[in-house]
Amino acid sequence: MAKTYSYAAQGSKDLLKPFTFERRALGADDVQIDILYCGVCHSDLHTVRNEWHNTLYPSVPGHEIVGRVTAVGANVSKFKVGDLAGVGCMVDSCQHCASCAEGEEQYCENGFTGTYNGPVFGGENTFGGYSDNIVVKEKFALRISHDNANLAAVAPLLCAGITTYSPLHHWKVGPGKKVGVVGLGGLGHMAVKIAHAMGAHVVLFTTSPNKREDGLRLGADEVVVSKNPEEMTKFANTLDFILNTVAAPHDLDAFLNLLKRDGTMTLVGAPDSPHPSPSVFNLIFKRRSLAGSLIGGIQETQEMLDFCARHGIVSDIEMIDIQNINAAYERMIKGDVKYRFVIDMDSLKKEVKVA
Amino acid sequence: MAKTYSYAAQGSKDLLKPFTFERRALGADDVQIDILYCGVCHSDLHTVRNEWHNTLYPSVPGHEIVGRVTAVGANVSKFKVGDLAGVGCMVDSCQHCASCAEGEEQYCENGFTGTYNGPVFGGENTFGGYSDNIVVKEKFALRISHDNANLAAVAPLLCAGITTYSPLHHWKVGPGKKVGVVGLGGLGHMAVKIAHAMGAHVVLFTTSPNKREDGLRLGADEVVVSKNPEEMTKFANTLDFILNTVAAPHDLDAFLNLLKRDGTMTLVGAPDSPHPSPSVFNLIFKRRSLAGSLIGGIQETQEMLDFCARHGIVSDIEMIDIQNINAAYERMIKGDVKYRFVIDMDSLKKEVKVA
Repeated sequence: MAKTYSYAAQGSKDLLKPFTFERRALGADDVQIDILYCGVCHSDLHTVRNEWHNTLYPSVPGHEIVGRVTAVGANVSKFKVGDLAGVGCMVDSCQHCASCAEGEEQYCENGFTGTYNGPVFGGENTFGGYSDNIVVKEKFALRISHDNANLAAVAPLLCAGITTYSPLHHWKVGPGKKVGVVGLGGLGHMAVKIAHAMGAHVVLFTTSPNKREDGLRLGADEVVVSKNPEEMTKFANTLDFILNTVAAPHDLDAFLNLLKRDGTMTLVGAPDSPHPSPSVFNLIFKRRSLAGSLIGGIQETQEMLDFCARHGIVSDIEMIDIQNINAAYERMIKGDVKYRFVIDMDSLKKEVKVA
Repeated sequence: MAKTYSYAAQGSKDLLKPFTFERRALGADDVQIDILYCGVCHSDLHTVRNEWHNTLYPSVPGHEIVGRVTAVGANVSKFKVGDLAGVGCMVDSCQHCASCAEGEEQYCENGFTGTYNGPVFGGENTFGGYSDNIVVKEKFALRISHDNANLAAVAPLLCAGITTYSPLHHWKVGPGKKVGVVGLGGLGHMAVKIAHAMGAHVVLFTTSPNKREDGLRLGADEVVVSKNPEEMTKFANTLDFILNTVAAPHDLDAFLNLLKRDGTMTLVGAPDSPHPSPSVFNLIFKRRSLAGSLIGGIQETQEMLDFCARHGIVSDIEMIDIQNINAAYERMIKGDVKYRFVIDMDSLKKEVKVA
């Protein structure tokens, strides 16, 4: 059992504050990881504030974890002490359903175990990466082959990276394909980088004219201000695939209209209240599809990390101390971050030493 | 130019009444068809009453046409005088866009020409199959290989048949696949027959408990009363594909929930007012898709007709005289037809002779 320092919320109205708990004893299949960096995902905030009405307290969020292995169980073969390792959104799944058998643990028929807020229906709570260490099954730990210089910016790949890579990969984005990315936030900026690296022609749609330059810098071939109907009209029936990263309710038809025949728009953000109902005519008249996608499987997450390392892709981040996490949440709500906060876990370790 | 007897509406509030017009002179690529039977599709009624706000008057509906060739143009090779022939929802398309090139004329980028209510944006009106003859490009006429005994029941294949065959075929329904069909009307009863003949396990969903026996007779392996939550729950996450034929606004989530991971529900009915907005969570958590599909291409329509002839599939019909068409519309609105009205065009020809 390892004494663990973290930041937790004790209730939906509470700020995140220091919290101490014990990680489970290292099992034969486990690795223990000293956490160096943890990205800040919008899901962390939704969970801490119980906005999905399923939060177990105390709540220690964080599922974009990068660190260094400090101990390995007897059966562990993939990692040795001193290796870099990552942990994403999942720490377990049933391992015997059809989805698990196909390496799609994120769709586990029995429900995967989240890195935090654990088994949603009964069972124990799990504590995430706003902490100084984690014990996790080797199977759910990822190898990191990026340069050591940039490890903080690797952390967001574990959620924002795989959430965008998986649908881009599943729907076969690549050379010769024209791909739309809707929204330039934590997810959107990863989608632009990854789709560009996959060789697609990338069209970024944003409501902010002042994001145009940044969009081009990140890898978009074209940037469209989606509030401008004339700009939008030019792209009607031209896109093979659209990855829509916007979680706020919005008019889906404006984007479905841009898909070619047989095109798909995939949603990776879930709004608190419904989008306006999409037009059935828009689907019927071009055999278009509206789909959803959830993070990615463990093997696919490894593929994504290796792909990003090969292509030199990391997240654009702003590093923060854990003591500033509550202020960072307020900025995140306003979209005031380019494009992901990452907690430097040294700040937690120093606080503990001082105390 | 051929003098043509028909039934037409002169305005959105008018009943269908006798109307005489001239078909174009037979061109080199045309066939002329003496119409024997014409099915009655819900689109006929929507058009006659201008419910889609695009009706050109006078309106002569009918796009489920079966007849006998009476004349062929100089370039025609597929038909000779005396052959059976069918005409479906389209009589022309641009023939040079990507969709036309791939034999998907129903998605013609420049807009196909409907068998009635012609080019929607400008151009001439076209007159459909509630008439004694039609002149049509050979390319848009279909060969009929069914037994002559059952020709009236072949007519609805030209719209209801292809509208259901095309998505079942496109989404690869066949042996080993579990397929849901939502709604048992003109489209639904064809979907059940065709999906069954394709070798799939067919689950019919209907709101009417009294359609259970009919569903099984038509080829469903199971019939579920969709208003019964307990029956529905049993099918959660079990279906590979759902063909939803219901045009009335309804809760799509109740059916999306029944799809396995990566399953698709395809809509072929377009409601007058929107469905309640589908849950994004339902799409995301199983990577499900919601899609639409429009009739089918000409080559695919021929495949469908040949498939149905091989499997002995026709529509379940109620034959009517054209003089009863207005009463038939009222019954169709109430769903009081098993499962398609077909006009015996002899009734029109006799009326003309008497007059």
